[in-house]
Amino acid sequence: MAVVVQNIRRADAALAGAFAEFGVATTHEAQGRTGLLAPHLTPIWPGAQISGTAVTVSVPPGDNWMIHVAVEQCRDGDVLVVSPTSRCEDGYFGELLATALQARGVRGLVIEAGCRDVRELTAMGFPVWSRCVSAAGTVKEVLGDVNVPVVCGGQLIRPGDVVVADDDGVAVVPRRDAATVLDACRARAGTEAASRTHYAAGELSLDLNHMREKLADRGLRYVDAAEYDAEHED
Amino acid sequence: MAVVVQNIRRADAALAGAFAEFGVATTHEAQGRTGLLAPHLTPIWPGAQISGTAVTVSVPPGDNWMIHVAVEQCRDGDVLVVSPTSRCEDGYFGELLATALQARGVRGLVIEAGCRDVRELTAMGFPVWSRCVSAAGTVKEVLGDVNVPVVCGGQLIRPGDVVVADDDGVAVVPRRDAATVLDACRARAGTEAASRTHYAAGELSLDLNHMREKLADRGLRYVDAAEYDAEHED
Amino acid sequence: MAVVVQNIRRADAALAGAFAEFGVATTHEAQGRTGLLAPHLTPIWPGAQISGTAVTVSVPPGDNWMIHVAVEQCRDGDVLVVSPTSRCEDGYFGELLATALQARGVRGLVIEAGCRDVRELTAMGFPVWSRCVSAAGTVKEVLGDVNVPVVCGGQLIRPGDVVVADDDGVAVVPRRDAATVLDACRARAGTEAASRTHYAAGELSLDLNHMREKLADRGLRYVDAAEYDAEHED
Amino acid sequence: MAVVVQNIRRADAALAGAFAEFGVATTHEAQGRTGLLAPHLTPIWPGAQISGTAVTVSVPPGDNWMIHVAVEQCRDGDVLVVSPTSRCEDGYFGELLATALQARGVRGLVIEAGCRDVRELTAMGFPVWSRCVSAAGTVKEVLGDVNVPVVCGGQLIRPGDVVVADDDGVAVVPRRDAATVLDACRARAGTEAASRTHYAAGELSLDLNHMREKLADRGLRYVDAAEYDAEHED
Amino acid sequence: MAVVVQNIRRADAALAGAFAEFGVATTHEAQGRTGLLAPHLTPIWPGAQISGTAVTVSVPPGDNWMIHVAVEQCRDGDVLVVSPTSRCEDGYFGELLATALQARGVRGLVIEAGCRDVRELTAMGFPVWSRCVSAAGTVKEVLGDVNVPVVCGGQLIRPGDVVVADDDGVAVVPRRDAATVLDACRARAGTEAASRTHYAAGELSLDLNHMREKLADRGLRYVDAAEYDAEHED
Amino acid sequence: MAVVVQNIRRADAALAGAFAEFGVATTHEAQGRTGLLAPHLTPIWPGAQISGTAVTVSVPPGDNWMIHVAVEQCRDGDVLVVSPTSRCEDGYFGELLATALQARGVRGLVIEAGCRDVRELTAMGFPVWSRCVSAAGTVKEVLGDVNVPVVCGGQLIRPGDVVVADDDGVAVVPRRDAATVLDACRARAGTEAASRTHYAAGELSLDLNHMREKLADRGLRYVDAAEYDAEHED
Repeated sequence: MAVVVQNIRRADAALAGAFAEFGVATTHEAQGRTGLLAPHLTPIWPGAQISGTAVTVSVPPGDNWMIHVAVEQCRDGDVLVVSPTSRCEDGYFGELLATALQARGVRGLVIEAGCRDVRELTAMGFPVWSRCVSAAGTVKEVLGDVNVPVVCGGQLIRPGDVVVADDDGVAVVPRRDAATVLDACRARAGTEAASRTHYAAGELSLDLNHMREKLADRGLRYVDAAEYDAEHED
Repeated sequence: MAVVVQNIRRADAALAGAFAEFGVATTHEAQGRTGLLAPHLTPIWPGAQISGTAVTVSVPPGDNWMIHVAVEQCRDGDVLVVSPTSRCEDGYFGELLATALQARGVRGLVIEAGCRDVRELTAMGFPVWSRCVSAAGTVKEVLGDVNVPVVCGGQLIRPGDVVVADDDGVAVVPRRDAATVLDACRARAGTEAASRTHYAAGELSLDLNHMREKLADRGLRYVDAAEYDAEHED
Repeated sequence: MAVVVQNIRRADAALAGAFAEFGVATTHEAQGRTGLLAPHLTPIWPGAQISGTAVTVSVPPGDNWMIHVAVEQCRDGDVLVVSPTSRCEDGYFGELLATALQARGVRGLVIEAGCRDVRELTAMGFPVWSRCVSAAGTVKEVLGDVNVPVVCGGQLIRPGDVVVADDDGVAVVPRRDAATVLDACRARAGTEAASRTHYAAGELSLDLNHMREKLADRGLRYVDAAEYDAEHED
Repeated sequence: MAVVVQNIRRADAALAGAFAEFGVATTHEAQGRTGLLAPHLTPIWPGAQISGTAVTVSVPPGDNWMIHVAVEQCRDGDVLVVSPTSRCEDGYFGELLATALQARGVRGLVIEAGCRDVRELTAMGFPVWSRCVSAAGTVKEVLGDVNVPVVCGGQLIRPGDVVVADDDGVAVVPRRDAATVLDACRARAGTEAASRTHYAAGELSLDLNHMREKLADRGLRYVDAAEYDAEHED
Repeated sequence: MAVVVQNIRRADAALAGAFAEFGVATTHEAQGRTGLLAPHLTPIWPGAQISGTAVTVSVPPGDNWMIHVAVEQCRDGDVLVVSPTSRCEDGYFGELLATALQARGVRGLVIEAGCRDVRELTAMGFPVWSRCVSAAGTVKEVLGDVNVPVVCGGQLIRPGDVVVADDDGVAVVPRRDAATVLDACRARAGTEAASRTHYAAGELSLDLNHMREKLADRGLRYVDAAEYDAEHED
Repeated sequence: MAVVVQNIRRADAALAGAFAEFGVATTHEAQGRTGLLAPHLTPIWPGAQISGTAVTVSVPPGDNWMIHVAVEQCRDGDVLVVSPTSRCEDGYFGELLATALQARGVRGLVIEAGCRDVRELTAMGFPVWSRCVSAAGTVKEVLGDVNVPVVCGGQLIRPGDVVVADDDGVAVVPRRDAATVLDACRARAGTEAASRTHYAAGELSLDLNHMREKLADRGLRYVDAAEYDAEHED
């Protein structure tokens, strides 16, 4: 049953790489608030902001053999995505695998499990988003799959999809939506820049976005503290 | 039912701001070990140490509309406190709202939910204490309340109370206790400085605080390892 | 029943200190993938890498009295290990106790509970691995034990054992195994350096470690994406 | 600082008792979706459905002394509410305290901590809603407070408030709102009975509550599976 | 973007229903140890064992509007599967919706969120597998999707797939694999019955499954306790 | 390194079995509030109350091979104790292994991982205390150890120790302390019976245990609600 799928179709490399500039929050919003991985996947060091094409790995609990198999399937501009078949916090990944991946141009790792060698990975500048940091060693006995669809952080990720990751977490963009979503990112970034200027000048979103009427329609009431306290006096 | 309470009574601004110097642990101890928010509220970047007056917001799950409403109620020296009506990890807050708050002199945010744009908030120097980091977008459809008492991190926080936050977490001081607790903070800081000098010189709290007799009264026994091992040999 | 065991046998000081160079992951692997504490014990500031001999403390929930008692039992090269008798997140430990320990040459603290004064401990360079950061104050009313075997992070730690801690977490090496495991660390570090060179040059672990045949024997199948997609078409 | 507040004002006994018939979900809805304690407070045995007036206890971690103190403050129709000052899972409460409370007519316990003697409490018919079941023993050394406002399950509970608990969890109704909320419960129960009849007959809430137009206005689109699949074909 | 997909292809009704006899563990094993939802999805009452065809619903946090929309899409033999777009513990579902579903022949609910009215659902015999029990009310303001692929309990579930649920949890079988996996279930059940007889007679799996040689090959060593203790003496 | 230790010394069978009558809470108290396993180990069905001698198994994540090995080491009156080397929630154990153990007179299982076949285990009357219920299948590839000391639920358990388990959880009594602790259980049970009679008659522990003076010494203050409210008025 175990399979390594080769010659996957990847999102266009230039498109995939362009998401890094916009980051996770903008990407997630730009595709209609979808594609965000759960927040328990956190960066092991702050400041990295990457995007690339997913190579996916499904691994058994406590066994990192298939990550070794997956290295060969990676190429420049990829992001490795690893998910165990049941909850596991072991340290599947460390500096040696990172060295092998970095040599192939892989931009980072997203893993629904543990990672180790944090100091070395930080020094190498190899970013990892993981469930936890753990030095727990793994074995190489049981097969899994490479480049099959996996669920990671509660999102379906297919090989070749775009993965975006930064200090806010990780998002996935389906391969064929990459161009559309990237355009939407650009549009959103423009809008946000305009909003930022207004807000910095002390303007209110209540006014800029004409919220006051809708708030009143829904029944929002403004009261003075003295009045409120009197109503709620014991 | 939704209400925005205006013109709240705030703790004195100078008092409220003075707690930052002492920080969370000292404030918590100084008011009799009360007022500490639960430790799952952690800073998104290290090193911030603030205090100010609470503006409170009660929000529905996945809806940040009332934070937009609350901005207008904030003024220089405030700290925004946001709590959802049921557990939620969405990213209610990011750099745009922070820009708006910073323009009004707000010192930081405490939120029993998620926060996003960590990189930008760090660059802006706007501190946030949150349950998690999450880019998950929210909607603007359901009302909540501004400046009503909320429970956040397991503590009751009323509008106008003093909120203190640093790398150790967050504490609240009831508005009318601010002066008393601040005095107690000063006294405690003095005592601790003295203790620090003694400890740095190698003196023991056992002696400084006369604990030995009380320990003996309670029945503490000193034994040699050889004796203990013999007793516990299998 | 409460006892302070004195004059414990410690692992050789030079041996105990030598583990710091290798760190947690190597130590854990070198002793056959044993001795690793659970990953919820995390450093309060990044970059510390220590090893030393354990002085152990068993404390009641919410009571740090026995840590004060334990200070006197510590000496140069020790690492304090504290575990509560039931789950507790209170801030048992802060800068004053750290000052006292640092004055005695203690290298750090491992605590299955909370820690406070993160800013001050960071400034002092006193490293702590804890379950959480919490400013919650504790009392001094109930006895516990010093230098008895404790379970911390799911591992049995005996007084005098070697404790190793870094950004990856914490590991324990039984006292009498220290020399053997240290030798194994050195051997492993050599092997890893060689692997690193190969990987950096783009060689694959599949080839270096002769995995291909074993993978084929277990039934791993390589297929082309087009073929795989055709098989899985809906 | 520790205090026992006596002669608290309780919600009217008949009102307080009448909520049991409606249960937690109806009560929570009837007061505008407020007052619900967090879902980690679960019943130790299924089927109990109670309501009564709160006697509150604030306890230190690992210390149940104040529960003993609180027994004397309880009377017929009360529900004891216990909350530790920091997270604790110890078994503060068992069959002996339940026997004492049952002798005074107390209807049950809500505790933000552990409970033990599940078998005996089940046999006695004494219901408990707790964070967990734990046999961990507690001490009697440190004071706390009886009949002060406490936060339990993320809700503020004042002595004399109405507490409602059943298989769905626990809710609190402020003392002075008891009559109003009880009326709302009755109204809601009537509406729900009508809805139940319609639904059992196969009618749809889409029609009964005229949702179709609003759904269309918001942009809901109905498509055939074949069409949808064609749109999403890879 | 919100869509209701109609006229989905469902797994054959007889096939889908036949899995109930075998239950979750056998189904999961029979399809190669895949398709199991995470164990935090637990039954609200013990003893139910069902299978049927999935109708899926993607809902916003705190909003159950789309469940009302989904009722109309359900028919005899279905199982409703609901997943929020971000973590939520609210009580999306209770007895009124269950009444509506039961009237249409729906066999149960799987929900990655909260459920309420446990007592009534138990009395009705309507089974639910949920993340938690919570009475927290939800609103009807924000759209979602019906009959699109969802991730629930870490597994991808497509409309029309087979869902199996019992006291062990929940499993999903892809629609087109239903016949094959059902055959494998039958085969496995036969094998297990044979094993059960052997084990009940005191035979050992070590012998029945010829494990001894493989264990020895891997290096398993049998030692006497006296010998082991001597080796590990301190 | 993997080892099966044979011919372990067990606590006396009659002693070991006698703890079941007293249960977990009494045993834990009787040995000085020690030996209690963490409360996340819960029974899969209510009402079982057992005690016996521990046969211990250390297993890799996701691999139950060593449980098969351990069956042969079990005999009448034993309780199997299984702990994975890193956190794992897989379903290591089900009805077939239970059948094999029951045939040998084993009284139950304590497992720091998942368990499956809850319905069948309940029907068989084979009790299990586990971290969770999960049908996740395991492999048989990697060795572990049988009858070595393990940490389970945060407690050290040695082969031959007494394990006690009931609806309150699990406790361990060191083999050589069995007789002493059993005596203490009997004494405690007597005392509790006396207390129960007093409490049922409405007497207060405050009086029976002469707590009032100690409470006053510590500074407990009794105030009237009216007075308290006046002090705390806003």
